[in-house]
Amino acid sequence: MSRIDARLADLGIVLPEPPQPVATYVPFTNHNGLVTISGQLPLQTGKLFAVGKLGAEIDVDTGRFAARLCLINLLAQLRVACDGDLDRVTGVLRLGGFIASAPDFTEQAAVMNGASDLAVEVFGEIGRHARSTIGVAALPLGAAVEVEGLFAIT
Amino acid sequence: MSRIDARLADLGIVLPEPPQPVATYVPFTNHNGLVTISGQLPLQTGKLFAVGKLGAEIDVDTGRFAARLCLINLLAQLRVACDGDLDRVTGVLRLGGFIASAPDFTEQAAVMNGASDLAVEVFGEIGRHARSTIGVAALPLGAAVEVEGLFAIT
Amino acid sequence: MSRIDARLADLGIVLPEPPQPVATYVPFTNHNGLVTISGQLPLQTGKLFAVGKLGAEIDVDTGRFAARLCLINLLAQLRVACDGDLDRVTGVLRLGGFIASAPDFTEQAAVMNGASDLAVEVFGEIGRHARSTIGVAALPLGAAVEVEGLFAIT
Repeated sequence: MSRIDARLADLGIVLPEPPQPVATYVPFTNHNGLVTISGQLPLQTGKLFAVGKLGAEIDVDTGRFAARLCLINLLAQLRVACDGDLDRVTGVLRLGGFIASAPDFTEQAAVMNGASDLAVEVFGEIGRHARSTIGVAALPLGAAVEVEGLFAIT
Repeated sequence: MSRIDARLADLGIVLPEPPQPVATYVPFTNHNGLVTISGQLPLQTGKLFAVGKLGAEIDVDTGRFAARLCLINLLAQLRVACDGDLDRVTGVLRLGGFIASAPDFTEQAAVMNGASDLAVEVFGEIGRHARSTIGVAALPLGAAVEVEGLFAIT
Repeated sequence: MSRIDARLADLGIVLPEPPQPVATYVPFTNHNGLVTISGQLPLQTGKLFAVGKLGAEIDVDTGRFAARLCLINLLAQLRVACDGDLDRVTGVLRLGGFIASAPDFTEQAAVMNGASDLAVEVFGEIGRHARSTIGVAALPLGAAVEVEGLFAIT
């Protein structure tokens, strides 16, 4: 068992089968070890965990867990990009957080911490990433959160 | 005629003169073959094809065609980045789709497929890209769609 | 004094202590000289300069100055990434501009010019960058503008 797989097991996280895109794009590209992963929704066993907007139907704690699920789905894609060996990850370079927001919602950062915290729990120091978090008008399928990622692998 | 130019001709696509930014930024940067192209609007012969929001004035089919136009404008910029030879493209690494959306619109993915499908029609397997699609509150000039791209060239 | 520091002094700009993230992410990552900097808010001496939305409480001139402040904060982070020597910057590859917008606001480009113009004033030709500018529903802490950046350094 790889070091990161052991860490995931410690955290009680089972990576899902990575969600497949429903169109002509792919889950990730790899350019000389720079892995760009498509925006992931908070899918859990094939269903969206959180539909709606922060500041309306969705509260911050629910949004934070949705962001964590997005990160889990990113990790599932990343494991495929690493041919199954997450120990090949050398850096989480950037996470982009898109938070479906009612016009007066301003706690996007607290929501996105659900993804950021897990990245550091899983990868330690190399999990510390640059990030941009914004509040968007709406997301595909009505999802509350979407997270994209840029990773370095060997 | 290059292979990709022939493919474009097969598809009946004539790349326009690439739209020029109206400010101090540039259409693209090239860092060791990593080409970042500025967000492109659905300009057609100098005019915006679609002004308004999905879920309001603009329907999904119109939005999808607008996304296709954005991709055509990305290709026009990319050709310049390749000194005219699109056969130098080795990968479409990422497309970012910004869909101006009424608050309850959730079909952003279907709209963005207008760009993604064309990327694959033009480039085949190397046209398969990572992508993030979000619904935004508003876009420059009131455009319905904006698409940015990251490409690898030799 | 480095060339860029001298240029900043000419422009009357004093880079602040770089703002620290309030969560588990970091201000920037550096992957083989590719520096990704987290989205920066228009913080000035620790306070948000502009809270609200363009097209509502915030006018274009105020938004443009807010975008300029975001760029100053990006430069403060970038200087740390360069171990204090901004002359190591070889390119501003991309700026991403997020403009908190009322639904009918369409002048996002004019706002974002506050960041783009300063990048060119500071760095000259290598300051010319690709950029994507979008209008978003809401930003962290209610900020009017957020700007992220991708830079190349030696």
